[in-house]
Amino acid sequence: MDATSRIERALAAAVARAEGLGGPPKLAEAMHYSVFPRGARIRPRLCLAVARACGDDEPAITDAAAASIELMHCGSLVHDDLPCFDDADIRRGKPAVHKAFGEQIAVLAGDALIVMAFQVLAWATVSRPERLSHLMLTLGRAVGAPSGIIAGQAWECEPVIDLAEYQQEKTGALFAAATVMGAAAAGMEAEPWRLLGERLGEAYQVADDIRDVASSREDLGKPIGQDAALGRPSAVAQLGMQGALARLKDLAAGAVAAIPDCPGAAELRAHILSESQRLVPPKLAAAAA
Amino acid sequence: MDATSRIERALAAAVARAEGLGGPPKLAEAMHYSVFPRGARIRPRLCLAVARACGDDEPAITDAAAASIELMHCGSLVHDDLPCFDDADIRRGKPAVHKAFGEQIAVLAGDALIVMAFQVLAWATVSRPERLSHLMLTLGRAVGAPSGIIAGQAWECEPVIDLAEYQQEKTGALFAAATVMGAAAAGMEAEPWRLLGERLGEAYQVADDIRDVASSREDLGKPIGQDAALGRPSAVAQLGMQGALARLKDLAAGAVAAIPDCPGAAELRAHILSESQRLVPPKLAAAAA
Repeated sequence: MDATSRIERALAAAVARAEGLGGPPKLAEAMHYSVFPRGARIRPRLCLAVARACGDDEPAITDAAAASIELMHCGSLVHDDLPCFDDADIRRGKPAVHKAFGEQIAVLAGDALIVMAFQVLAWATVSRPERLSHLMLTLGRAVGAPSGIIAGQAWECEPVIDLAEYQQEKTGALFAAATVMGAAAAGMEAEPWRLLGERLGEAYQVADDIRDVASSREDLGKPIGQDAALGRPSAVAQLGMQGALARLKDLAAGAVAAIPDCPGAAELRAHILSESQRLVPPKLAAAAA
Repeated sequence: MDATSRIERALAAAVARAEGLGGPPKLAEAMHYSVFPRGARIRPRLCLAVARACGDDEPAITDAAAASIELMHCGSLVHDDLPCFDDADIRRGKPAVHKAFGEQIAVLAGDALIVMAFQVLAWATVSRPERLSHLMLTLGRAVGAPSGIIAGQAWECEPVIDLAEYQQEKTGALFAAATVMGAAAAGMEAEPWRLLGERLGEAYQVADDIRDVASSREDLGKPIGQDAALGRPSAVAQLGMQGALARLKDLAAGAVAAIPDCPGAAELRAHILSESQRLVPPKLAAAAA
């Protein structure tokens, strides 16, 4: 089964648990709406690619690790879009959850997706409990305080922001979780995989800043020009477009160089280079390659 | 060490992790503010009492289970108080988190407390990984969709509410987690402890409805009369005050009858009867005893 099918199946199985058994319908519907139809699934695809490079000896645990990262990502987007933060109308080309379901359900759907991200790890590891702890601790570190995506978002409430730290927490943390959890799901020593994820997270953040300037609204599925409009830190504002493209190229090369020794290193290298090119609008891809 | 000291120490150690290591200061401050100074700590005290009745062979795991339940409870209160829900000004006798720190930090502090609730379980079970899975699954079920406290809150967004189901999820779920996790933390067969928690949760909900009518604002630490003002379901509205007091008495007796065989059953029975009396204002306690 290909990576996309595995990820979608794992996510669908998780969300189905929230939909069944007589729970409140709007919450379940909003959770489904937050996760489907799929976004780029960059983080879970990365997690799966690393697990495969490490042997993928327990595919159900790999799939759960990938799904847990995507559920956490989707939950964070729902909360980031709330009126008190970005007050975004559009996400992935359709109304943001708080627009479609109201603010109350948006808060609760985000909460429930966070909880579900941990649940899928526990469901998948019942017969291999020794793998649960590392997966959970890695996910928690990538998400919570003081250094996960929630902390990253909270830096926006502080008077002084260190751009590198902000982006590392806001974006890099979940990419690092993707690589570490991919290796941990396959039972390999996992921490050597953190650097790869951190570099890819940084690359993704730079690419995101580039897309915010250079994409069309249709390509992006959300309004463009938001960084400048909201005064947010941006690599393009800091380095210029050419500088940002050069930085992205360096970061992708650095990521490939950080792949630890493993049976599937060559395949993983190809995956990462191909994904890096997909991150920027086609007209700029040559410059970033 | 007494139960209160154990719980406060475990909570302080957890929150200290969010405060250290250069994370965003307001988020860490808001998390601390959400957890301290202490509320009644009814759920973690119940968890600890059950673990003791079951032998409490791994006190650090017991303390983590108790802390995780309280962190989840505190996180849910922060979100319940948000402007889009209760828009509460006061909680535990001081400004609600969104009033003290702003709405953004309140959303993020709630999120981070949910994450931390799972983290404390993983931190405490590194040497006993076989106990982590059941603790996590029990906590997840009590909190998420379709049947945990988040689902309970989401019923408020539905046109038709089943009062019993709403209260079971909104309140009973976390009490059931407290008893089941107390037993699981001590390595005992845990599901037989669920009924005790469910009955205590129902008793607590009835007592809460009574306090909302019969307490003073000073006793309660938040405004009184909110159920009637917000048109919320209430046992007092449904049964009258005398009926609600009689129901509370029945539920406490039913809870005591549901205690499974265990070494410390007598002590636990005394704990539960004493706690039940503390739930209602002193002037009504005789009627509830």
